[in-house]
Amino acid sequence: MNVRFTLDGMARVSQEHLDARRRQILDGAARCFARNGFHATSMQDVLKEVDLSAGAVYRYFSGKDELIAAIAAEVLGEVRAAFGEVTRQSPPPPLDELVGSVLGRMLGIWSSLTVDGQPGFPRLIMQVWAEVARNEELAAITRNGYEALQAGWVQVVREYQESGVMRPDIPAEHVTRTVIATVQGFIAQQSLFGPAPVEVLQDGLRALMSMSDTRTAS
Amino acid sequence: MNVRFTLDGMARVSQEHLDARRRQILDGAARCFARNGFHATSMQDVLKEVDLSAGAVYRYFSGKDELIAAIAAEVLGEVRAAFGEVTRQSPPPPLDELVGSVLGRMLGIWSSLTVDGQPGFPRLIMQVWAEVARNEELAAITRNGYEALQAGWVQVVREYQESGVMRPDIPAEHVTRTVIATVQGFIAQQSLFGPAPVEVLQDGLRALMSMSDTRTAS
Repeated sequence: MNVRFTLDGMARVSQEHLDARRRQILDGAARCFARNGFHATSMQDVLKEVDLSAGAVYRYFSGKDELIAAIAAEVLGEVRAAFGEVTRQSPPPPLDELVGSVLGRMLGIWSSLTVDGQPGFPRLIMQVWAEVARNEELAAITRNGYEALQAGWVQVVREYQESGVMRPDIPAEHVTRTVIATVQGFIAQQSLFGPAPVEVLQDGLRALMSMSDTRTAS
Repeated sequence: MNVRFTLDGMARVSQEHLDARRRQILDGAARCFARNGFHATSMQDVLKEVDLSAGAVYRYFSGKDELIAAIAAEVLGEVRAAFGEVTRQSPPPPLDELVGSVLGRMLGIWSSLTVDGQPGFPRLIMQVWAEVARNEELAAITRNGYEALQAGWVQVVREYQESGVMRPDIPAEHVTRTVIATVQGFIAQQSLFGPAPVEVLQDGLRALMSMSDTRTAS
């Protein structure tokens, strides 16, 4: 074990060691959860996966609920970062490119985490969504995170509207919800039906952007 | 109890009674599942919710797994019907109207099923999505259903492309996946953040449809 001695002579486990051990447990739990879901996974499954004693694991996490909360918080943090990063460019790139980079980033998260050869992260997102319904704390984290990223995307949409590439008479919040929905739905499809390349969604968006609204043309 | 006598003099419970009792159990289980998720719900919770004895319930369902399978099959059937119905019109109405009617239908499913005053059906969908990852049978049902409705929607997209309201050079399957993703994502938002009217997504689609692609214009 990685120890160091402090002035009082006590052996202390280094912070790096604590962090690495915590990471090891979270990664193992994530593999279990992606494979089998939050609820069908037992603490025994996690102990077996990380190959540590109960004592070693319970030192970091009081139980499965705390592990679920930690994994869910990480998943939501990664999702928020993926959505947030791209809203910093001004003027914003075309919408299909912007959504493509969000999605591409999201599909690259925890790419080493696979289940039967398929990406594990989309499955973890499904677990989090299912869990939010019954977990008030998780629901609050999700709502706050969503509101923050919604605010960033509203700015992007307003830039589109002000520069004339999008009709200006539609509330930016409605456009934002729709754009975020395309990414959420595509992630759900990855979990349900297996991987699909980012280009599929980008193509689809370009097709929608090419549509003429025959009603406004009259 | 609703009985009738057959020629051999045996009392038989009528089919209608059996169906109604089965329905009563499924509705109660759906309330439990929407409130608390598939896995955190016990058979005891279901028995309490439907106010029946274990014997009465186990006569219809061998256990929780069979209840989950029955509810999941119903949820997927309703979703498929909602998506399928609208692809029968030719020529198809404008895309935002079409998607609006799918979504409106979906939000109307099991409208009497509420949790804390919020629609319960979107929450059930999240439970099904989370369950698909670990349930091969459910995964197969979902995949088959998706492929069937995908085929219907591809026809709609081709009609848009052939009639010139959508650029024809993008694979119809990619457009279909994208359109279905908007609905899936919007349903996820309903479950995560509460109800929002169909008009939000319709507005958003109209905004996307109004966008000019500056790259093809060059």
